[in-house]
Amino acid sequence: MAELAGNCLIGQSGGPTAVINASVAGVVSEALNHTCIEEVYGALNGMLGILHEDLVDLAAESQQAIRGLRSTPGAALGSCRLKLKKPADFERVLAVFQAHNIRYFFYIGDHDTQDTAAKISALAREQNYEIRVIGIPKTIENDLPGTDHCPGYGSAVKYIGTTVRELAVDADAMGAGDLVTIVEVMGRNSGWLAAGATLAKRRDHPNDPPHLIYVPEVAFSNDKFLDDVRRTLKRERHCVVVVGEGLVDKDGNYVAVESSAADAAGHSQLGGVGEYLKDLVEAQVGAKVRVARLGVAQRAAAHMAAKIDVDEAFLVGQSAVKAAVNGESDKMITLVRGDGEAYTCETGLTALGEVAATTKKLPPEWVNEDGVSMNFQFYRYATPLIQGEVTVPYDNGLPAYARLAKESVAKTLPGYEG
Amino acid sequence: MAELAGNCLIGQSGGPTAVINASVAGVVSEALNHTCIEEVYGALNGMLGILHEDLVDLAAESQQAIRGLRSTPGAALGSCRLKLKKPADFERVLAVFQAHNIRYFFYIGDHDTQDTAAKISALAREQNYEIRVIGIPKTIENDLPGTDHCPGYGSAVKYIGTTVRELAVDADAMGAGDLVTIVEVMGRNSGWLAAGATLAKRRDHPNDPPHLIYVPEVAFSNDKFLDDVRRTLKRERHCVVVVGEGLVDKDGNYVAVESSAADAAGHSQLGGVGEYLKDLVEAQVGAKVRVARLGVAQRAAAHMAAKIDVDEAFLVGQSAVKAAVNGESDKMITLVRGDGEAYTCETGLTALGEVAATTKKLPPEWVNEDGVSMNFQFYRYATPLIQGEVTVPYDNGLPAYARLAKESVAKTLPGYEG
Repeated sequence: MAELAGNCLIGQSGGPTAVINASVAGVVSEALNHTCIEEVYGALNGMLGILHEDLVDLAAESQQAIRGLRSTPGAALGSCRLKLKKPADFERVLAVFQAHNIRYFFYIGDHDTQDTAAKISALAREQNYEIRVIGIPKTIENDLPGTDHCPGYGSAVKYIGTTVRELAVDADAMGAGDLVTIVEVMGRNSGWLAAGATLAKRRDHPNDPPHLIYVPEVAFSNDKFLDDVRRTLKRERHCVVVVGEGLVDKDGNYVAVESSAADAAGHSQLGGVGEYLKDLVEAQVGAKVRVARLGVAQRAAAHMAAKIDVDEAFLVGQSAVKAAVNGESDKMITLVRGDGEAYTCETGLTALGEVAATTKKLPPEWVNEDGVSMNFQFYRYATPLIQGEVTVPYDNGLPAYARLAKESVAKTLPGYEG
Repeated sequence: MAELAGNCLIGQSGGPTAVINASVAGVVSEALNHTCIEEVYGALNGMLGILHEDLVDLAAESQQAIRGLRSTPGAALGSCRLKLKKPADFERVLAVFQAHNIRYFFYIGDHDTQDTAAKISALAREQNYEIRVIGIPKTIENDLPGTDHCPGYGSAVKYIGTTVRELAVDADAMGAGDLVTIVEVMGRNSGWLAAGATLAKRRDHPNDPPHLIYVPEVAFSNDKFLDDVRRTLKRERHCVVVVGEGLVDKDGNYVAVESSAADAAGHSQLGGVGEYLKDLVEAQVGAKVRVARLGVAQRAAAHMAAKIDVDEAFLVGQSAVKAAVNGESDKMITLVRGDGEAYTCETGLTALGEVAATTKKLPPEWVNEDGVSMNFQFYRYATPLIQGEVTVPYDNGLPAYARLAKESVAKTLPGYEG
């Protein structure tokens, strides 16, 4: 493979995770190891920054700042939810790439992100512009195909598991009366996050909280739910329920839709399933109900990130650069689990174009017959992904997160007319 | 002061905090230093356990378990929300004390708890039953009078500040459009917790998030709120709002009351102010709004406890025992801040009977004229209270919290007929 000399560009897209910045750190530090890569640029707010030619010089950042990215939540370069559609926009992206001699493009995100990367790569090929495009996976929802798991998932599960355990201990402390604690977690199309809460149970304590877990992969029924709650209250005196926001009934309809409005990328706004279940329990069971809606904290709680997740997020960044330098393009980096008893993980590659089309569901055979708990296969899968704690730097009592200097790269093109 | 020989009893009452168990650890370890204290008992679920004669032997617990209490949330002995009213119930408490030769009673809680302790002590005096009763403060709401601050507050603020900082970083990452993040925190009658979120701003960065803080001590106005949000969005492109659940308008009415139902102690159920403000912003400003309702996690997040708070919670437990052994009774332990530049704190005493009547408000002069930010006096007060991190033990990726063996003390009385 002939060496391709030129500049590299990194962008972040979609909802941030606790470790998406660790992938940026991985790309930047690896890029600097290769002389064929001249400048290391970042795109502000992903595709938005590319369209507007808002690029920054990442090689100019202090090493301290790049190291700090390993433990900083949010998207340090800024993110976006933009699905390119107009041919003129794709042309504009290519024009920006050409203007800045971008020969390596690394795009960190989930389905839509990888889809956009694939389309840009196809256009470049069509126009004989040589560029290597590598996708880097991230999503707390863990639903990208072709990879054992997704960076961001382990940390989100570690945070959810910790919070469920703490809420359960608090609920258990109140001696009088029946109390139902409902924890609503993310998971638009899959139950990976809700299922992950099961790790809050101690080994060999199946009756530990969370007592009931509802995932979108199992059709939801009001009657069964109420029976489950009544049975648990009888046995335990309190009941901890974990529910994914994307819960559906047997006809495939969402149990709770917050509003009919759709976001810019055309996704309907889910939410409110916790409140829906609260109303149900209050009306039918008469127990007191608390709802915790963890929301964005699930993807932002870097103080509770799993060390293994941070390390793997950094690794997929590094591997993306290595793959591109070795001549790969149109691929997304994947995580490949070793076959041995002890957990090991290395990276692989999958075709970019195949990522967008598929949502990886929680395997139904990992859910017990009761429909509300996970079996040993899920434990074996998820337990290694939440291991290890990170040491976040503290300043005056609170986590100190890194900020980039974001030194602008001079613009050379006329302004974007979108 | 003549030495008083007999057994001691510890109870926990009201909503747990991240550090209420550290106070139990302080009492137990100090009690074992004094030969006049024979048995060290715990009451399960506070007054409920006393009425039902459900006592456990705390001296029989492993040292490991007692040490583990320092970093365990919830109430390890169980808690309750029970305000004794019937004379027969007070008589029953005294009968249980006599039956078990309880000569030292330590009750950990807030206003109602200290009130109950004062009444029991008065009855004992009336009946010439010699007992020393010492109250131990705890509340994340920080509103007990007579003490510089309350154990539990610093850890709750550390957790709120961390979460606000993480949510703000996440919100800041999304480049397109106006986004309002509303974080609803506890604080039925005072703004201590909401105000504490201001520590998420970096020093000398007044425009850092949280941009707007609303406390019950400042009358709320819809118009001013909407102006504040519009101004912030114009300046920052996104806006982080922190709001206390007990917000009131200029006539003193709660801005949002979840339901007319009152709990067992007669407190109305607050909540929903976050959703209320969301509806307001969506209707009047048209921005996208995210609401995070931190709920019980604020008082249960032991993984984010402030070391200084854990240490002080342990200290008030120790001091309670020392005071009682020295002949004090009818007092609550207080925290007394030193006058020097560097933060120091020792314990003092205040009359139990004076605690219940007063809610300590956030001093209005600590709020800036804009009504939505805190001045240097608040920073000077609160900053020392969130310092230091704790090392929670982890087991298989999640915090491992202690559980007590709770070896029952034999009952000697007829059952409680409440």
